[in-house]
Amino acid sequence: MAQKPSIPKGTRDFSPTEVAKRNYIFSIIKQVFEVYGFQPIETPSFENSSTLMGKYGEEGDRLIFKILNSGNYLNKVEDVLLSTKDSLKVTSKISEKALRYDLTVPFARYVVQHQNDIVFPFKRYQMQPVWRADRPQKGRFREFYQCDADVVGSKGLWQEVEFVQLYDAVFSKLKLIGTTIKLNNRKILAGISEIIGEKDKLIDFTVALDKLDKIGEEGVTKEMLAKGISEEAIKKVQPLFSFNGSNQEKLNQLQSMLTKSEEGTQGVEDLRFVVNNIEKLGLQSANLELDVTLARGLNYYTGAIYEVSAPKGVKMGSIGGGGRYDDLTGIFGLKNVSGVGISFGLDRIYLVLEELNLFDTVELPTPKVMFVNLGENEAAYCMNALITLRKNNIKSELYPDNTKMKKQFNYANRREISYVVIVGSDEIKNNNFTVKNMNSGEQKVCNLEELLKISTLF
Amino acid sequence: MAQKPSIPKGTRDFSPTEVAKRNYIFSIIKQVFEVYGFQPIETPSFENSSTLMGKYGEEGDRLIFKILNSGNYLNKVEDVLLSTKDSLKVTSKISEKALRYDLTVPFARYVVQHQNDIVFPFKRYQMQPVWRADRPQKGRFREFYQCDADVVGSKGLWQEVEFVQLYDAVFSKLKLIGTTIKLNNRKILAGISEIIGEKDKLIDFTVALDKLDKIGEEGVTKEMLAKGISEEAIKKVQPLFSFNGSNQEKLNQLQSMLTKSEEGTQGVEDLRFVVNNIEKLGLQSANLELDVTLARGLNYYTGAIYEVSAPKGVKMGSIGGGGRYDDLTGIFGLKNVSGVGISFGLDRIYLVLEELNLFDTVELPTPKVMFVNLGENEAAYCMNALITLRKNNIKSELYPDNTKMKKQFNYANRREISYVVIVGSDEIKNNNFTVKNMNSGEQKVCNLEELLKISTLF
Repeated sequence: MAQKPSIPKGTRDFSPTEVAKRNYIFSIIKQVFEVYGFQPIETPSFENSSTLMGKYGEEGDRLIFKILNSGNYLNKVEDVLLSTKDSLKVTSKISEKALRYDLTVPFARYVVQHQNDIVFPFKRYQMQPVWRADRPQKGRFREFYQCDADVVGSKGLWQEVEFVQLYDAVFSKLKLIGTTIKLNNRKILAGISEIIGEKDKLIDFTVALDKLDKIGEEGVTKEMLAKGISEEAIKKVQPLFSFNGSNQEKLNQLQSMLTKSEEGTQGVEDLRFVVNNIEKLGLQSANLELDVTLARGLNYYTGAIYEVSAPKGVKMGSIGGGGRYDDLTGIFGLKNVSGVGISFGLDRIYLVLEELNLFDTVELPTPKVMFVNLGENEAAYCMNALITLRKNNIKSELYPDNTKMKKQFNYANRREISYVVIVGSDEIKNNNFTVKNMNSGEQKVCNLEELLKISTLF
Repeated sequence: MAQKPSIPKGTRDFSPTEVAKRNYIFSIIKQVFEVYGFQPIETPSFENSSTLMGKYGEEGDRLIFKILNSGNYLNKVEDVLLSTKDSLKVTSKISEKALRYDLTVPFARYVVQHQNDIVFPFKRYQMQPVWRADRPQKGRFREFYQCDADVVGSKGLWQEVEFVQLYDAVFSKLKLIGTTIKLNNRKILAGISEIIGEKDKLIDFTVALDKLDKIGEEGVTKEMLAKGISEEAIKKVQPLFSFNGSNQEKLNQLQSMLTKSEEGTQGVEDLRFVVNNIEKLGLQSANLELDVTLARGLNYYTGAIYEVSAPKGVKMGSIGGGGRYDDLTGIFGLKNVSGVGISFGLDRIYLVLEELNLFDTVELPTPKVMFVNLGENEAAYCMNALITLRKNNIKSELYPDNTKMKKQFNYANRREISYVVIVGSDEIKNNNFTVKNMNSGEQKVCNLEELLKISTLF
């Protein structure tokens, strides 16, 4: 007997129920993106390797899935090179395409390639799978979807306000109440590094600061000293150790701490703009929280930095994130195009909604009505009724084979079909239908109009 | 300056308008699939090579995109093998995964892998991209979507009737009136080969017969003789040369021609079942046509064969096709599971709808309302109004920067935004909005409630 087939590690099959739940999340994100003025684009699953390589650092390059050239691809490789078995060098000779690693670099490529057709500021969203040859682990996959919205061609801070609203709108629609949208600004971090006098220590600094909750002020100070940050520098940023008040209080502390840094002061102003306007406009269900330890993607973000965490009590990493990058398209030769964008973590949002039982209103793609198949004449009669139901968008079907009633009911049960319709010679004679409510067990005889009415009600 | 980036040949970027039009087609197919009782599944973009290889013939194997193993993949290749530069043999050592080539084999794999969780008959649909290293040409791409619906675990002929209805329902909803659903049955073809006495000549025979329109009876006979089909055999199937009447007339001709073939007679009965029931049930906009020259996928179809052609006058290959295969899952060790399925050709349907101007009702994902940005106070006032519009699902936005009015109007024009709202100090003072209808040029002053009403209309 053949071996039972399997799928590559880190990939997944999605059952009908899973697809329906995922589509529910996608459709809400998509709807909100569009309501906020974003337009969809799609890019190919694979790009020229030259487009992707070198954009994600050395580690990223290794995680990109490369596609083998077609035909006698080895012909193009010199014997000498081949005999070295240097996989890295040989790869560039036998592979010219690679699966996209994220949606940001393909988007930058898209903007540069189509710059003459694009109306700037360009607000695009994109929801497509990406692939990474990462070590698979719980919640981390080799194929997963990203859902991104970005604006390029504007430095306006209103867009940064809108992204906070957008996160709030999506999570509110998903009934995921109590998320926290964390906000920071690269310029604050630059200001801090100016104040502590050592730009290259910034990451060590924020990593240590981030542990404040766990190891306390003393522990953090110890770690900073160990990383070579001077006592004097630490004293200057002392306010960050008791950085606990309201956003306004935090802003005031930052302002007085960073007065001597022009960039840092600008960062405080930018943050204040977003915080003040969000306070005036209000949010539906999310909290906005200034977090100076937020440093994700520090390498490319140049302004706002966002990260969203799930409601308290749910153990889960960030369920969204983003920021401003001032020169996204520069890598492809189009300079001075500022961009800002956010992303939703589909898989994690799915897990959170599952844990909190927030999928209960999702309509599963299961038929509502099934007609039992008791023979050719009976089936033909049912097929006529099906035309009416289907024209009214009722998910419905005829059991395809004339087999035992028990088997047919079993099928309806397992598929969680709500109504089973039985048509025998009596029903044909009287031009009606016997309908069984599979939840209550109730059974009644009705005509087509009534059947339609029953199946239109939930 | 950096080189302007590009995408691999045979792949495409989709602009917002293209995405919207494609999604319109997808959503109608999806809706009809679900109304007919089909449930969605999704499978990974890449499968283990062993799942795909050997399933599509030698030519197919060559067109499968292989994914290079990660890390020092050359280490696993013996020096001797490597030095032969035999790409085919080396591939199996350096690549274990491949991009899916179609949705049928992954579906078969899915059914076998999840057989214990599946309720049979299993009605699934799947709409995902597939990849083929084909030579790109007009209308043929290396990445394209397939939209498939299949039933496995039933031999019932009603499902074959339903697929005709399903095609008709989708194309009618797309307002694509006058498609032709061609129908044949593998058993008819087997019967013909029995009658002409040479099973291996069947393809030559149908190919020649298919040219009847172009080269006439004489031409066809000549070609058949040249292919080694005997005069006697040709005489036996003479009725096929004047195979022009109604479906019922064709069935009668086939019946009398194939009386001596048991399998052929069964094929006529099967076809008659579908034809008769479709005649009784009626179709909305499509024509059903028996076509004995229809032989697509002859290698694996075992019963019904479908193909849909665009309305007359539109030059386009088939826009859909499918058939019954009696042992789909056998390749993965699960025997005796009959399946029948159909597929929609998304790219071709797109081209046909474009040619016939059938996209005019598609709602493009462009904002309906844009607020001009005249400064911080004005923008803040607009942002408040935006909250109301967006809660009412009006696609709307604020121009992100406070730049020249002309530039902002230009942007609104190019994005085809319907209403531009202007808010200056007067509007703030009077708590109202100046709204310009960008189509008529008309301008009026209104309050928020009226603004909402205006933007909800149309």
